Amino acid sequence: MTSQKFLIKVGGGEKINWHYIAKDLVGITKKAKIVMVHGANAIRDEIAKKMGVPTRIITSPSGVSSVYTDSLALDIFLMSYAGLANKRIVSLMQKSGLNAVGLSGVDGRLWQAKRKQHTFSVENGKTKLIKNNLTGRVEEINVKLINTLLKNYFLPVICPPAIDEDSQIVNIDGDIAAVRTAAALGIKKIVFLFESPGLLRLYPDEKSLINKVEKDNIDKYLPMVVGRMKKKILAVEKAFDLGMQTVYFGDGRYENPITNILAGKGTIIS
Amino acid sequence: MTSQKFLIKVGGGEKINWHYIAKDLVGITKKAKIVMVHGANAIRDEIAKKMGVPTRIITSPSGVSSVYTDSLALDIFLMSYAGLANKRIVSLMQKSGLNAVGLSGVDGRLWQAKRKQHTFSVENGKTKLIKNNLTGRVEEINVKLINTLLKNYFLPVICPPAIDEDSQIVNIDGDIAAVRTAAALGIKKIVFLFESPGLLRLYPDEKSLINKVEKDNIDKYLPMVVGRMKKKILAVEKAFDLGMQTVYFGDGRYENPITNILAGKGTIIS
Repeated sequence: MTSQKFLIKVGGGEKINWHYIAKDLVGITKKAKIVMVHGANAIRDEIAKKMGVPTRIITSPSGVSSVYTDSLALDIFLMSYAGLANKRIVSLMQKSGLNAVGLSGVDGRLWQAKRKQHTFSVENGKTKLIKNNLTGRVEEINVKLINTLLKNYFLPVICPPAIDEDSQIVNIDGDIAAVRTAAALGIKKIVFLFESPGLLRLYPDEKSLINKVEKDNIDKYLPMVVGRMKKKILAVEKAFDLGMQTVYFGDGRYENPITNILAGKGTIIS
Repeated sequence: MTSQKFLIKVGGGEKINWHYIAKDLVGITKKAKIVMVHGANAIRDEIAKKMGVPTRIITSPSGVSSVYTDSLALDIFLMSYAGLANKRIVSLMQKSGLNAVGLSGVDGRLWQAKRKQHTFSVENGKTKLIKNNLTGRVEEINVKLINTLLKNYFLPVICPPAIDEDSQIVNIDGDIAAVRTAAALGIKKIVFLFESPGLLRLYPDEKSLINKVEKDNIDKYLPMVVGRMKKKILAVEKAFDLGMQTVYFGDGRYENPITNILAGKGTIIS
């Protein structure tokens, strides 16, 4: 009965309800092995603001936005993701009886990334070269640590950042990291939970929910979506490239978020 | 050749040289299994100041000082210990080829504590009851997670805080937690590294180093020491109560810090 394996990626929005997620997982973990990956952008932005260095968003020439990460922004990233958010989630899961262990991509070189040598940013119509940007792309997943934990009945709860080949800590895209982790572990189903009922035809109109998407049609939705959803769609494309069977988009704000999307309440891409 | 096991507790002072520690560990881990525990008080104080809520020290009626930990101070604690310090240390060790995995006492309920119901603080000669102090004492070590990692050739790097029976995150004394962890793992030797050559007869005169202490005489040094060293002496007493063979006090500021103290350069208590 524990042959099912899911990777669940939970967004870092402030309306995500971790109590509901933990409660739902109590039942789910009786039937399936779970690997969690989470974001923490809301907490990060709050701390960055409190520390007087607000998060700075840059937009690439292809229109994808990302967070500018100099060494101070990386410190704040570590504090909010690996420190505050990750340990809050772990303690909340422990309260529900889930034996969670929190990890970052740095631990055991879990997420090894290739650092981006150059980043370009479009500002006021001009393309600028951004230096000292500590970001990268996850290229290698060291599954041994995760498999060791799963085998011993721990629930891995993983968050960015990652580590590059020179052991520099680098910011990476959490959705892509989640997708690559699932693929490396032989997991065929990924659940994304965020602050929306699923993929919306007319964002932010929640009534425009698209219930089913054929995986070969996913790129059609790319021009229609905005903001972070653009990155999620790119991650989903990568997931199917890597052999994923089904990707679920569900609402992380309400009760039974995982059970609901597995039962079809949200967007199923397959 | 890997039958030797050490627990190394490194203080959180700003002069601790983690490069030297990592370099020294490369040789040591060829002959011994290592469990690391670390503090991060310097980083914590710096972040607390930046966030406009400086660390507040309270002193108990018996003269032992500790950090007042309300929920905001606990957030800062998580950010600086489990976030910034722990992941910096892990990446630095990874750079030296050590397969470090960072954990807090919250992960896998590694350090289960009993929360203190009341804390008393002496201020201007008056004893006050301190409420909402999220502190506790580590009472139970869940060794399974550490043993699982050691067995699979990972190097556990552990830091406070801990988790209480209700899954509340609580601040605890890292030295006592380290001692209890060693005892629970059947480790007989603990190395404490800090910003001093060892136990000093006339603090801060580094020439007054005491080279050897008989374990039955350790309590004689309690009235002679100041500040954090008081807590360390109490932790050492606890260590011998729990069956420790040798406790080493070494200098974490200079090259080969662990090799040096194992060779007798520092204070050896046995």
